[in-house]
Amino acid sequence: MDRAQIFKFIAKRKTAFIASVNEHGYPVTRAMLAPRKIEGHCIYFSTNTSSKKVGQFIENNKACVYFYKRGLVRYRGVAILGEMEVCTDQAVKDMIWRSGDSMFYKRGATDPDYCVLKFTGAAAEWYCDLKSGSVEL
Amino acid sequence: MDRAQIFKFIAKRKTAFIASVNEHGYPVTRAMLAPRKIEGHCIYFSTNTSSKKVGQFIENNKACVYFYKRGLVRYRGVAILGEMEVCTDQAVKDMIWRSGDSMFYKRGATDPDYCVLKFTGAAAEWYCDLKSGSVEL
Repeated sequence: MDRAQIFKFIAKRKTAFIASVNEHGYPVTRAMLAPRKIEGHCIYFSTNTSSKKVGQFIENNKACVYFYKRGLVRYRGVAILGEMEVCTDQAVKDMIWRSGDSMFYKRGATDPDYCVLKFTGAAAEWYCDLKSGSVEL
Repeated sequence: MDRAQIFKFIAKRKTAFIASVNEHGYPVTRAMLAPRKIEGHCIYFSTNTSSKKVGQFIENNKACVYFYKRGLVRYRGVAILGEMEVCTDQAVKDMIWRSGDSMFYKRGATDPDYCVLKFTGAAAEWYCDLKSGSVEL
Protein backbone atom coordinates (compact mmCIF):
# COMPACT_ATOMS: atom_id res chain seq x y z
CA MET A 1 0.00 0.00 0.00
CA ASP A 2 1.21 3.48 -0.77
CA ARG A 3 0.30 6.72 1.02
CA ALA A 4 -2.75 7.40 -1.17
CA GLN A 5 -4.09 3.86 -0.74
CA ILE A 6 -3.62 4.09 3.03
CA PHE A 7 -5.61 7.31 3.34
CA LYS A 8 -8.31 6.02 1.01
CA PHE A 9 -8.57 2.90 3.16
CA ILE A 10 -8.78 4.71 6.50
CA ALA A 11 -11.32 7.25 5.21
CA LYS A 12 -13.83 4.40 4.81
CA ARG A 13 -13.46 2.86 8.25
CA LYS A 14 -16.17 3.40 10.86
CA THR A 15 -14.02 2.56 13.84
CA ALA A 16 -10.50 3.60 14.78
CA PHE A 17 -8.40 2.09 17.54
CA ILE A 18 -6.17 4.49 19.35
CA ALA A 19 -3.37 3.41 21.63
CA SER A 20 -1.48 5.35 24.26
CA VAL A 21 1.25 4.38 26.71
CA ASN A 22 0.11 4.62 30.32
CA GLU A 23 2.03 5.83 33.38
CA HIS A 24 3.48 2.34 33.97
CA GLY A 25 4.69 1.95 30.38
CA TYR A 26 1.89 -0.35 29.22
CA PRO A 27 0.24 0.20 25.84
CA VAL A 28 -3.53 0.76 26.10
CA THR A 29 -5.85 0.35 23.10
CA ARG A 30 -9.47 1.46 22.80
CA ALA A 31 -11.99 1.75 19.99
CA MET A 32 -13.14 5.19 18.93
CA LEU A 33 -15.76 6.40 16.51
CA ALA A 34 -14.38 7.21 13.07
CA PRO A 35 -12.21 10.34 12.91
CA ARG A 36 -14.09 13.60 12.66
CA LYS A 37 -11.68 14.96 10.10
CA ILE A 38 -8.62 13.79 8.19
CA GLU A 39 -6.48 16.59 6.79
CA GLY A 40 -3.10 15.73 5.31
CA HIS A 41 -1.53 13.40 7.85
CA CYS A 42 -3.54 14.90 10.73
CA ILE A 43 -6.48 12.94 12.12
CA TYR A 44 -8.98 14.55 14.51
CA PHE A 45 -11.16 12.82 17.10
CA SER A 46 -13.57 14.20 19.66
CA THR A 47 -13.53 12.90 23.21
CA ASN A 48 -14.10 13.65 26.89
CA THR A 49 -11.51 15.84 28.55
CA SER A 50 -11.96 13.75 31.69
CA SER A 51 -11.18 10.43 29.97
CA LYS A 52 -8.15 8.41 31.01
CA LYS A 53 -6.61 8.55 27.54
CA VAL A 54 -6.50 12.35 27.60
CA GLY A 55 -4.45 12.22 30.81
CA GLN A 56 -2.17 9.61 29.24
CA PHE A 57 -1.60 11.67 26.09
CA ILE A 58 -0.82 14.78 28.14
CA GLU A 59 1.90 12.79 29.93
CA ASN A 60 3.14 10.92 26.84
CA ASN A 61 2.09 11.99 23.36
CA LYS A 62 3.33 8.87 21.55
CA ALA A 63 0.35 7.24 19.91
CA CYS A 64 -0.87 4.67 17.42
CA VAL A 65 -4.05 4.98 15.39
CA TYR A 66 -5.09 1.65 13.90
CA PHE A 67 -7.70 0.82 11.28
CA TYR A 68 -8.68 -2.57 9.99
CA LYS A 69 -11.11 -4.42 7.80
CA ARG A 70 -11.78 -8.06 8.29
CA GLY A 71 -12.65 -10.30 5.36
CA LEU A 72 -13.70 -13.93 5.50
CA VAL A 73 -10.19 -15.27 5.81
CA ARG A 74 -7.80 -12.38 5.48
CA TYR A 75 -7.79 -8.88 6.86
CA ARG A 76 -6.23 -5.54 6.08
CA GLY A 77 -4.84 -3.35 8.78
CA VAL A 78 -2.99 -0.05 8.96
CA ALA A 79 -1.21 1.22 12.07
CA ILE A 80 -0.13 4.85 11.97
CA LEU A 81 2.43 5.94 14.55
CA GLY A 82 2.79 9.55 15.57
CA GLU A 83 2.01 12.16 18.18
CA MET A 84 -1.33 12.94 19.81
CA GLU A 85 -2.11 16.48 20.87
CA VAL A 86 -4.93 17.29 23.28
CA CYS A 87 -6.55 20.41 21.81
CA THR A 88 -8.55 22.66 24.05
CA ASP A 89 -8.30 25.59 21.64
CA GLN A 90 -11.86 26.81 21.00
CA ALA A 91 -11.36 27.33 17.25
CA VAL A 92 -10.38 23.68 16.84
CA LYS A 93 -13.23 22.54 19.08
CA ASP A 94 -15.69 24.58 17.00
CA MET A 95 -14.32 23.10 13.76
CA ILE A 96 -14.80 19.52 14.98
CA TRP A 97 -18.14 20.03 16.76
CA ARG A 98 -21.30 18.43 15.33
CA SER A 99 -24.80 19.24 16.48
CA GLY A 100 -25.42 15.66 17.70
CA ASP A 101 -22.58 16.10 20.18
CA SER A 102 -24.86 18.05 22.46
CA MET A 103 -26.30 14.68 23.51
CA PHE A 104 -23.00 14.03 25.31
CA TYR A 105 -21.84 17.57 26.07
CA LYS A 106 -24.71 19.54 27.51
CA ARG A 107 -22.91 22.84 27.38
CA GLY A 108 -22.14 22.55 23.68
CA ALA A 109 -18.82 23.23 21.97
CA THR A 110 -17.61 25.22 24.96
CA ASP A 111 -18.31 22.38 27.41
CA PRO A 112 -15.08 21.93 29.37
CA ASP A 113 -15.47 18.14 29.14
CA TYR A 114 -15.44 18.29 25.33
CA CYS A 115 -12.03 18.28 23.73
CA VAL A 116 -10.35 17.31 20.49
CA LEU A 117 -7.54 14.86 19.96
CA LYS A 118 -5.32 15.87 17.04
CA PHE A 119 -3.08 13.07 15.84
CA THR A 120 -0.16 13.78 13.53
CA GLY A 121 1.02 10.62 11.81
CA ALA A 122 4.69 10.12 10.99
CA ALA A 123 4.80 6.59 9.59
CA ALA A 124 2.38 3.79 8.76
CA GLU A 125 2.73 0.05 8.90
CA TRP A 126 0.28 -1.88 6.77
CA TYR A 127 -0.80 -5.50 6.45
CA CYS A 128 -2.79 -6.58 3.43
CA ASP A 129 -3.50 -10.10 2.20
CA LEU A 130 -0.51 -11.64 3.95
CA LYS A 131 1.85 -8.92 2.75
CA SER A 132 3.12 -6.07 4.87
CA GLY A 133 5.20 -2.95 4.61
CA SER A 134 5.79 0.51 5.96
CA VAL A 135 5.45 4.02 4.57
CA GLU A 136 6.75 7.38 5.80
CA LEU A 137 3.93 9.93 5.82
CA MET B 1 -18.42 -5.81 34.17
CA ASP B 2 -16.87 -8.28 36.58
CA ARG B 3 -14.15 -10.82 35.88
CA ALA B 4 -16.58 -13.55 34.78
CA GLN B 5 -18.45 -11.21 32.42
CA ILE B 6 -15.16 -10.04 30.92
CA PHE B 7 -13.96 -13.56 30.12
CA LYS B 8 -17.38 -14.53 28.78
CA PHE B 9 -17.28 -11.48 26.52
CA ILE B 10 -13.77 -12.05 25.16
CA ALA B 11 -14.39 -15.77 24.56
CA LYS B 12 -16.96 -14.82 21.90
CA ARG B 13 -14.84 -12.34 19.95
CA LYS B 14 -13.39 -13.36 16.60
CA THR B 15 -10.71 -10.70 16.54
CA ALA B 16 -8.25 -9.55 19.17
CA PHE B 17 -6.10 -6.44 18.99
CA ILE B 18 -2.71 -6.75 20.55
CA ALA B 19 -0.48 -3.79 21.29
CA SER B 20 3.21 -3.66 22.03
CA VAL B 21 5.60 -0.78 22.66
CA ASN B 22 8.25 -0.46 19.95
CA GLU B 23 11.94 0.41 20.28
CA HIS B 24 11.16 4.15 20.09
CA GLY B 25 8.49 4.00 22.81
CA TYR B 26 5.47 4.13 20.47
CA PRO B 27 2.50 1.86 21.06
CA VAL B 28 1.73 -0.39 18.06
CA THR B 29 -1.65 -2.10 17.63
CA ARG B 30 -2.53 -4.88 15.19
CA ALA B 31 -5.49 -7.21 14.72
CA MET B 32 -5.01 -10.90 15.39
CA LEU B 33 -7.24 -13.89 14.89
CA ALA B 34 -9.13 -14.92 18.01
CA PRO B 35 -6.98 -16.43 20.76
CA ARG B 36 -6.19 -20.09 20.37
CA LYS B 37 -6.75 -20.78 24.03
CA ILE B 38 -7.86 -18.89 27.12
CA GLU B 39 -6.87 -20.51 30.41
CA GLY B 40 -7.37 -18.58 33.61
CA HIS B 41 -5.97 -15.15 32.86
CA CYS B 42 -3.58 -16.52 30.22
CA ILE B 43 -4.41 -15.96 26.55
CA TYR B 44 -2.54 -17.79 23.79
CA PHE B 45 -2.04 -16.67 20.19
CA SER B 46 -0.10 -18.25 17.34
CA THR B 47 2.12 -16.12 15.15
CA ASN B 48 5.24 -15.91 13.01
CA THR B 49 8.53 -15.92 14.89
CA SER B 50 9.87 -13.50 12.27
CA SER B 51 7.10 -10.92 12.80
CA LYS B 52 7.94 -7.45 14.10
CA LYS B 53 5.72 -7.84 17.17
CA VAL B 54 7.71 -10.87 18.36
CA GLY B 55 10.89 -8.78 18.31
CA GLN B 56 9.09 -5.99 20.16
CA PHE B 57 7.78 -8.32 22.88
CA ILE B 58 11.23 -9.87 23.36
CA GLU B 59 12.60 -6.36 24.02
CA ASN B 60 9.59 -5.15 26.06
CA ASN B 61 6.98 -7.59 27.35
CA LYS B 62 4.39 -4.95 28.34
CA ALA B 63 1.27 -5.60 26.31
CA CYS B 64 -2.40 -4.84 25.86
CA VAL B 65 -4.94 -7.27 24.45
CA TYR B 66 -8.13 -5.52 23.39
CA PHE B 67 -11.51 -6.92 22.41
CA TYR B 68 -14.56 -5.02 21.28
CA LYS B 69 -18.05 -5.38 19.92
CA ARG B 70 -19.68 -2.59 18.01
CA GLY B 71 -23.42 -2.06 18.15
CA LEU B 72 -25.46 0.44 16.18
CA VAL B 73 -24.69 3.35 18.45
CA ARG B 74 -22.75 2.05 21.40
CA TYR B 75 -19.91 -0.39 21.75
CA ARG B 76 -18.36 -2.56 24.39
CA GLY B 77 -14.63 -2.85 24.76
CA VAL B 78 -12.24 -4.57 27.12
CA ALA B 79 -8.52 -3.79 27.32
CA ILE B 80 -6.44 -6.25 29.32
CA LEU B 81 -2.98 -5.10 30.37
CA GLY B 82 -0.26 -7.57 31.19
CA GLU B 83 2.89 -9.30 30.01
CA MET B 84 3.46 -11.09 26.70
CA GLU B 85 5.81 -14.05 26.59
CA VAL B 86 7.20 -15.39 23.32
CA CYS B 87 7.03 -19.19 23.71
CA THR B 88 9.29 -21.36 21.61
CA ASP B 89 8.88 -24.35 23.93
CA GLN B 90 7.79 -27.28 21.79
CA ALA B 91 5.21 -28.59 24.28
CA VAL B 92 3.39 -25.23 24.19
CA LYS B 93 3.68 -25.05 20.40
CA ASP B 94 2.20 -28.56 20.12
CA MET B 95 -0.66 -27.65 22.45
CA ILE B 96 -1.62 -24.60 20.36
CA TRP B 97 -1.06 -26.13 16.91
CA ARG B 98 -4.04 -26.84 14.65
CA SER B 99 -3.90 -28.89 11.49
CA GLY B 100 -4.88 -25.93 9.28
CA ASP B 101 -1.74 -24.12 10.41
CA SER B 102 0.31 -26.18 7.98
CA MET B 103 -0.99 -23.82 5.27
CA PHE B 104 1.21 -21.11 6.81
CA TYR B 105 3.97 -23.19 8.40
CA LYS B 106 5.14 -25.78 5.93
CA ARG B 107 7.28 -27.61 8.46
CA GLY B 108 4.42 -28.11 10.89
CA ALA B 109 4.49 -27.53 14.64
CA THR B 110 8.30 -27.67 14.67
CA ASP B 111 8.60 -24.96 11.98
CA PRO B 112 11.03 -22.40 13.43
CA ASP B 113 8.84 -19.58 12.10
CA TYR B 114 5.86 -20.82 14.14
CA CYS B 115 5.70 -19.59 17.69
CA VAL B 116 3.18 -18.95 20.43
CA LEU B 117 2.48 -15.70 22.23
CA LYS B 118 1.37 -16.30 25.81
CA PHE B 119 -0.24 -13.27 27.40
CA THR B 120 -0.76 -13.08 31.15
CA GLY B 121 -3.30 -10.44 32.06
CA ALA B 122 -3.00 -8.45 35.26
CA ALA B 123 -5.85 -5.94 35.02
CA ALA B 124 -8.72 -5.12 32.69
CA GLU B 125 -10.33 -1.84 31.77
CA TRP B 126 -13.81 -2.12 30.33
CA TYR B 127 -16.23 0.19 28.57
CA CYS B 128 -19.86 -0.81 28.21
CA ASP B 129 -22.85 1.34 27.24
CA LEU B 130 -21.21 4.62 28.28
CA LYS B 131 -20.03 3.20 31.59
CA SER B 132 -16.47 2.13 32.37
CA GLY B 133 -14.45 0.54 35.10
CA SER B 134 -11.44 -1.58 35.90
CA VAL B 135 -10.92 -5.03 37.37
CA GLU B 136 -7.84 -6.76 38.78
CA LEU B 137 -7.50 -10.22 37.27
